[in-house]
Amino acid sequence: MKVHVASTGLARFGKRSEGLVELLAEAGAEALEGIGRKPIDCLIVGNMAAGSLGGEENLTARIADRLGLDAASGFRVEAASASGAASFHAGVAAVAGGSSERALVLAGEKMTSLPTDQVAAVLARSLAPSEMQIGATMPALAAVVAQVYLHRYGLEAEAMDAVTVAARTAAAQNPNAQFRVPVTAAEVAASRPIALPLRLLHCSAISDGAAAVVLERGPGAATVLGLGQGRDALQVVDRSDITTFRATRIAAQRAYEMAHLNRKQIAFAELHDAFAPFALIDLEDIGVCGPGEAAQWFSSGATAPNGRFPVNVSGGLLGRGHPVGASGLVQIVEVARQLRSEAGPMQLGGAHGIGLAQSIGGLAAHNFVSILGQEAAE
Amino acid sequence: MKVHVASTGLARFGKRSEGLVELLAEAGAEALEGIGRKPIDCLIVGNMAAGSLGGEENLTARIADRLGLDAASGFRVEAASASGAASFHAGVAAVAGGSSERALVLAGEKMTSLPTDQVAAVLARSLAPSEMQIGATMPALAAVVAQVYLHRYGLEAEAMDAVTVAARTAAAQNPNAQFRVPVTAAEVAASRPIALPLRLLHCSAISDGAAAVVLERGPGAATVLGLGQGRDALQVVDRSDITTFRATRIAAQRAYEMAHLNRKQIAFAELHDAFAPFALIDLEDIGVCGPGEAAQWFSSGATAPNGRFPVNVSGGLLGRGHPVGASGLVQIVEVARQLRSEAGPMQLGGAHGIGLAQSIGGLAAHNFVSILGQEAAE
Repeated sequence: MKVHVASTGLARFGKRSEGLVELLAEAGAEALEGIGRKPIDCLIVGNMAAGSLGGEENLTARIADRLGLDAASGFRVEAASASGAASFHAGVAAVAGGSSERALVLAGEKMTSLPTDQVAAVLARSLAPSEMQIGATMPALAAVVAQVYLHRYGLEAEAMDAVTVAARTAAAQNPNAQFRVPVTAAEVAASRPIALPLRLLHCSAISDGAAAVVLERGPGAATVLGLGQGRDALQVVDRSDITTFRATRIAAQRAYEMAHLNRKQIAFAELHDAFAPFALIDLEDIGVCGPGEAAQWFSSGATAPNGRFPVNVSGGLLGRGHPVGASGLVQIVEVARQLRSEAGPMQLGGAHGIGLAQSIGGLAAHNFVSILGQEAAE
Repeated sequence: MKVHVASTGLARFGKRSEGLVELLAEAGAEALEGIGRKPIDCLIVGNMAAGSLGGEENLTARIADRLGLDAASGFRVEAASASGAASFHAGVAAVAGGSSERALVLAGEKMTSLPTDQVAAVLARSLAPSEMQIGATMPALAAVVAQVYLHRYGLEAEAMDAVTVAARTAAAQNPNAQFRVPVTAAEVAASRPIALPLRLLHCSAISDGAAAVVLERGPGAATVLGLGQGRDALQVVDRSDITTFRATRIAAQRAYEMAHLNRKQIAFAELHDAFAPFALIDLEDIGVCGPGEAAQWFSSGATAPNGRFPVNVSGGLLGRGHPVGASGLVQIVEVARQLRSEAGPMQLGGAHGIGLAQSIGGLAAHNFVSILGQEAAE
């Protein structure tokens, strides 16, 4: 059965004074208003680590209570930094499988309550325990990936700088973004080293925020065409190649197969750029260009809003902010808003009838791809 | 589409030296052996609070890696103390909806790594924040429920003692149970007060443990006939009546409707007796007897293995142990093993073709009912 995104909601990204339930309620209320408060029979809540980050458990009951959704079945869904994408896949399954008529999918994270080093320690728990125990962190392993990638293709750090510049330029147009001031390549290159070659402005920021979609049966302006998930070895050291993410390649292949589409038919994408080099790898992994070619796409403007293949027109994780369990669903909201011509100042010109969202769980151990497209309502 | 439990696995309950991933792998390996290691395309992991209790995140990736399930889609599912039941419902949705051919559902919890008071604090986070902040704990609120229930129906604490005696008698037959020594009513009545009228032996114990089921398409000896979920106000003070759990009544009604069955057609049940008085309320809420009648059922032996309606023949949460995120799936394993005549020393005599499992999330804010029955394989 076809499923479409009937309505969307977002809670602005950045350091927020509100708690997680309030942020989820803010996004949820916007999505519910969008369907005229029609009844919801399924509530799926995506979140990575409310227990560890904020001492909150039983989140689904809390938000159901808050939104008055006492008739809704459902549960919380977690898949590390891809929790938002996983919650979307779970919601689609409920509606497509017939157990739900109309589902509300929420995803959010509240990260700014703890000091940055404690947040980083929680995020590092997504890594293989063996690697975490010898001191690996997300940025440290991402730096290894970046280093090997740049070396393999004879690139300099400027290739990553261009990704950040594009993300921050796009985010300046996004009223919900955490970073609304563009940066220059020189500023990126001069920013504080985090784990070289990664500098501060190559890394997405700790954020609060939430997203919501209402899913209904049948086709619509933002219809789910294909979904795919893929895995890779949890230990990065066990992987044969770290210049590509096997988990994305498998997820994309499955999503294309389900959608009966090939890569050329995708018009734009939201990619998981938690670190700038990931955007390069992601673009190659979804098959838009070949290995080592992505840097040229970013630097030439081909991925800009007016380019051949717009990427992260809402600013991506780098510009929009990365509330970790929310981002996968934020991507879906942004793709759906483009398809529904609701993207405001970020609306793409011309025909962009099929969009793709790609989300990374942990250090690319469990990735998700979702393809949405315009179909005529019945 | 029909779905059946094709195979089951358990990791023994109690204080275990192994970590959570090892316990999940132990249960999972048993279930995978049971189907001859046929390929799994979906992995759902139920767990309440691995982050808060053990500093573990990204559990699904860890266990997929450990079991070599690199082709499986899926995610972690959480619904407080009903996480195991929620994971089962999510797994059934994946197979029934057609996105999975064969799903492995795992659920587990590792609780004994922390001191008891810290575990209790994590569990209390399932309550309404307003009630938690004024010092309420699970046992404290359960004691209020017990007190009102006993008073309403003119019962004494002996009604609860009988529930514990039955649970511990049953658990003595269960090789996986945490408590294999029966207790007398006098011992229950003399046990340490926790929150009167609740004494130590009226309360389920902190446990480690895990469960697993493999779900396949089509009918079988343990076919899913009906599933239902129900909610109630998170704040206990907002409920009109605390001698019954609205969330169970709604979940049961929905499960009966989906199964096209009435209460009289259910032969036995696994009920969520985290506290002894809950078993009384549960039996009434699933409609086996009327309000205030359950105590007579337990004290007369009607709920014993050879009674009219056997309850918790594997020992329940009170006798078997309550690894909080696992218990809802443990119940499913026990029902399925009865239907598949695999219950060993706990096997019920006679015809017991339809069983029910009932799981409570938080303080009965989000409850789950599942009905399984024997159907001829096609």
